Amino acid sequence: MLSKAKIKFVKSLQIKKYRKQEQLFVVEGAKSVKELLNSSFEVVTLIGVSDFLHSLDLQPGIETIAATDTELEQLGSFQSNDTVLAVARMKSNDHLRIDDHEFALVLDDIRDPGNLGTILRTADWFGIKKVIASQESADLYNPKVITASMGSFTRISAFYTALPAYLANYKNNVFGTYLDGVDIHKTDFGKGGLLLIGNESHGISESLASFVTQRVTIPRFGGGESLNAAVATAIICDNLRRT
Amino acid sequence: MLSKAKIKFVKSLQIKKYRKQEQLFVVEGAKSVKELLNSSFEVVTLIGVSDFLHSLDLQPGIETIAATDTELEQLGSFQSNDTVLAVARMKSNDHLRIDDHEFALVLDDIRDPGNLGTILRTADWFGIKKVIASQESADLYNPKVITASMGSFTRISAFYTALPAYLANYKNNVFGTYLDGVDIHKTDFGKGGLLLIGNESHGISESLASFVTQRVTIPRFGGGESLNAAVATAIICDNLRRT
Repeated sequence: MLSKAKIKFVKSLQIKKYRKQEQLFVVEGAKSVKELLNSSFEVVTLIGVSDFLHSLDLQPGIETIAATDTELEQLGSFQSNDTVLAVARMKSNDHLRIDDHEFALVLDDIRDPGNLGTILRTADWFGIKKVIASQESADLYNPKVITASMGSFTRISAFYTALPAYLANYKNNVFGTYLDGVDIHKTDFGKGGLLLIGNESHGISESLASFVTQRVTIPRFGGGESLNAAVATAIICDNLRRT
Repeated sequence: MLSKAKIKFVKSLQIKKYRKQEQLFVVEGAKSVKELLNSSFEVVTLIGVSDFLHSLDLQPGIETIAATDTELEQLGSFQSNDTVLAVARMKSNDHLRIDDHEFALVLDDIRDPGNLGTILRTADWFGIKKVIASQESADLYNPKVITASMGSFTRISAFYTALPAYLANYKNNVFGTYLDGVDIHKTDFGKGGLLLIGNESHGISESLASFVTQRVTIPRFGGGESLNAAVATAIICDNLRRT
């Protein structure tokens, strides 16, 4: 039975301040919840329709609450979710070490949660496991990020930090996308490095430009001034994995 | 002066039924409106803050209405637009002829307006000027599509039709993305053809599979079951433009 107090609590986790305070976040929808249950995240509560809850083979210690589809539609941030919602414990990374033979993404103020989720999903596909984000970037645990990542949030480690200090201490290649860089089709990305992704409106901050060791460009064949940030990330990831 | 009747009329254009009835649509934001004014679309009305309207060098015959930023925020579908909004006449294509030496996109039920807008923006960057869409796909003139396309809607022609009949009459290559196709890094895309983009949840419809002449795959290096539809489109476009 879903109490009013529980509804209020789950809804409060849509707000970053309360997520941070409780160190808990919400995952919505059957597909994402299944990926969550198969991951190393600690699941605290599952709220779902009875049939779905009974179909799961759960570890002990997880609170389960049966709810109707209508209750679920009202509880989460997505009306389309009528199956299950999970509350899970956040993981925080104090630091992420990037090996020399590894690619990682650096997000310079990616503000749109949908873009961040899509970037995580893309990074996951291309075997990139670590994301360093500016403190102004969208929150990894925002429900829209979690949903757009389609379960990939379970396989990516994120670390929020001040990027100038972080990049000043990094010794390998830093690739940044500009309109006047080297054609990515002719770039040797090597075995590892950071891929710096600029903000949706302003691109890469001027304060970070000096840390970019290789300016690269996605060749354009038509019109338009720019590409969506997640789209540009995807194209570069496909090129750096090409042998 | 912005009348109540005009507010009601502009707001009605957020709904497809009224757009179709009036053959008019709305473009929001300074950047998109400037691209609209430089395009072959007929602009009927401009509603904007005085400074912006005065900065424009307009053709005669366009109704201009001064409004405050607060009025604009309430008028459109995006609260972030506080500069200008345009009402323009729709263009409809009875047919789109695809030359043999030309690539075009075919959208098999792309339902999300943000995805459709991002796909148009991507197609534009890669010099693809024509999009054939199933009748169930999101409407090109949906305000979210227009905004996500970042002005690219002015350079792309779209044609909504029943895809099985359309594809049955097409004689050149049809590329479709599957998990078991030929690696796109090893595919010769030739000089032209159709790129069939599947629905966000279900991929390419079974009823269309027989029209695909070349099944292709974006190589995966990590986890996740799929890529976002706009992301997958972008990666394939970059590969088919590669020489």
